Amino acid sequence: MKKDNNIFSEDVGSFFRSPVRDIFKKVDLNSIYSFAGGYPSAETFPLEEIRRTMSEVIDKYGSKAFQYGATQGVTELREAVAARYGVPVERVQITSSSQQGIDVCTRVMVDPGDIILTSNPSYLGALQSFCSYRADIRGVSHVDDIDDYRAAYEKEIAKARDEGKKIKFLYMIPDFQNPSGESLNLDERKMLVSLAEEHGFLIVEDSPYRELRYEGEHIPTMYSLSPDHVIHLGSFSKIFAPGFRLGWAIAHPDILDKIYVCKQSLDLCPPIFDQYVAAEFLSSGRLDANLEKSIALYKGKRDLLLSLLEKHMPENVRWTHPEGGLFLFLTMPEGFDAVKFYDTALDAGVAYVAGEFFHPDRSGRNTMRLNFSFMSSEKIKEGVKHLADLLVNV
Amino acid sequence: MKKDNNIFSEDVGSFFRSPVRDIFKKVDLNSIYSFAGGYPSAETFPLEEIRRTMSEVIDKYGSKAFQYGATQGVTELREAVAARYGVPVERVQITSSSQQGIDVCTRVMVDPGDIILTSNPSYLGALQSFCSYRADIRGVSHVDDIDDYRAAYEKEIAKARDEGKKIKFLYMIPDFQNPSGESLNLDERKMLVSLAEEHGFLIVEDSPYRELRYEGEHIPTMYSLSPDHVIHLGSFSKIFAPGFRLGWAIAHPDILDKIYVCKQSLDLCPPIFDQYVAAEFLSSGRLDANLEKSIALYKGKRDLLLSLLEKHMPENVRWTHPEGGLFLFLTMPEGFDAVKFYDTALDAGVAYVAGEFFHPDRSGRNTMRLNFSFMSSEKIKEGVKHLADLLVNV
Repeated sequence: MKKDNNIFSEDVGSFFRSPVRDIFKKVDLNSIYSFAGGYPSAETFPLEEIRRTMSEVIDKYGSKAFQYGATQGVTELREAVAARYGVPVERVQITSSSQQGIDVCTRVMVDPGDIILTSNPSYLGALQSFCSYRADIRGVSHVDDIDDYRAAYEKEIAKARDEGKKIKFLYMIPDFQNPSGESLNLDERKMLVSLAEEHGFLIVEDSPYRELRYEGEHIPTMYSLSPDHVIHLGSFSKIFAPGFRLGWAIAHPDILDKIYVCKQSLDLCPPIFDQYVAAEFLSSGRLDANLEKSIALYKGKRDLLLSLLEKHMPENVRWTHPEGGLFLFLTMPEGFDAVKFYDTALDAGVAYVAGEFFHPDRSGRNTMRLNFSFMSSEKIKEGVKHLADLLVNV
Repeated sequence: MKKDNNIFSEDVGSFFRSPVRDIFKKVDLNSIYSFAGGYPSAETFPLEEIRRTMSEVIDKYGSKAFQYGATQGVTELREAVAARYGVPVERVQITSSSQQGIDVCTRVMVDPGDIILTSNPSYLGALQSFCSYRADIRGVSHVDDIDDYRAAYEKEIAKARDEGKKIKFLYMIPDFQNPSGESLNLDERKMLVSLAEEHGFLIVEDSPYRELRYEGEHIPTMYSLSPDHVIHLGSFSKIFAPGFRLGWAIAHPDILDKIYVCKQSLDLCPPIFDQYVAAEFLSSGRLDANLEKSIALYKGKRDLLLSLLEKHMPENVRWTHPEGGLFLFLTMPEGFDAVKFYDTALDAGVAYVAGEFFHPDRSGRNTMRLNFSFMSSEKIKEGVKHLADLLVNV
């Protein structure tokens, strides 16, 4: 390849490397105390039930399970997802991972320069995808007062109008957000949905953690509040296993029709055998039984992490109290630099993700995301002690 | 969703619906004589060996087979592909289908208006992807005289230069092309590679059918002639099973690095369990044993189709004689309209794909693509008779 030839798209410059995922390229997560990553616990993968289900799928579907399939996903899985979430099957598109759901929504909706509103902070993988389409990402920080929170969004909407720019959608993870672990209450959801309806943009509701609730009551999805203005994205990664790379999009058929045509040229269809396995797992009730065990396991880990932070962390460190999901968010005193500190921590065998990476406005230098799903309880205990010792000495 | 809101990207207009795949949405291929589609024969899927391999993968890798994995693909599969094709492992990226390989190459290289050279006709799914990135697709028809063939490409290169436009790559299926079934000889491959080297564009060599050769000698890949100027795309769909949605890209590490970052925001990583199954299948020799059976089966079907065409087709119909792959191409007399004729054929229970859809310049109205891998020999016999009867009466 001649180095001087400009063979790449100008857009290649807008792809950004995930510092998180590049870490995983170099470090074996099992060899350190890793609060980084968003991996589910390997303990939650029901290997023998998966083995049995796979054999049943081969018996039931035969060669059909290995042939090409429909671009929308196999009917059995679409029906199982539709039944589980109480939506019509024609509103369900199976995606080859919920990351693909994010990417494909952006691709069919966003032109360079279009605005995407997000929370500040927000999911890194989504920001990565938005950047690659040259979206203008505007993060809005959460504030507890609902009027102030609404005003913060209205300010962005007015600003966009003044600039003559289009807001295409608001990207939101209302349940146990990645990275903060926090959730939107019902009033906040209603408020955001009403803004979307009023100002003619969509909401992309990313819900990979929703079913991992350890306390409190389920809050209605934003989709359920306004089915024609919200694209709901779901994932099997946290309730079944990420290795299958399967998710779903629930949306108005007019939107799914665009996604369908886009997916034809992207990858034709999601993996067929994996879809049948997921469908069997779901409709047989095995998924729910396994999910119950996962919730108990993760609740224990969350409680452990919270109590360890309480016990070991310096006084000037604060953290969120997530009611579910896989993450909590640590805030160190102003002036602390979690990006710079990372190398020190990694040398001491502790990994986390610096909070700045999740902030579209590059704030949050003094924050970090901690995952509590991946490590064993023993390693969480040791890891928190290590991290706390390092932070005390800063 | 408010219909009057323009929530979609302007690029959505450049996605085009595949008339072929929309047919599959409506018609059950098993209920008709289908020469359409590019489905492998379900007979070639070794169900019991797959079942055994899956169980072995669970034993060998345990929960690792269901966790997130590396964006480049799992090491075992990359190594198996590298060994099979004699390339360094750092030049292998696993893709979530070879369609994704096409799409991701286009995404990292092509800006709107950039030129992609293709054969005329070429693979519909690739044209679909190129269109979605607003590429300027220029098809070059094959001619037997190598000097004339070179001149046809040089004419396009000169034209692009005069227009101040960039040719990003030449997309080529040198072995048993979809749709024509024809192959490029060694001199033609060398000529095209030398043009790419000389004029600073890449070649995307799409090779899903390469290993399905029924007669003649293997011809070196374009990649082997110029490893730094060719991206070689391979697929497990035709040599194993399409339901796994796995393929690979072999290319210069600088190109793979861009693809890597792009894939992070696309879908994080290919399906993990499926990759381990493919790796085991490949390295255990099961893939080769199964491939041998597939080749014997498809050779029989090709021979059958050729002899039936000879026997039943009207005198004024011509067809290609593919040495491998899944397709052959029929040319009817000038004035015949295979697009219009399609409804008549489908009413009579026969499906094909009109050749026009494969032609970037919208020529080829009097051509059609026939697939011989999907149907049983019995159905091929009946199907050809039906089609020939229809064509005689035109």
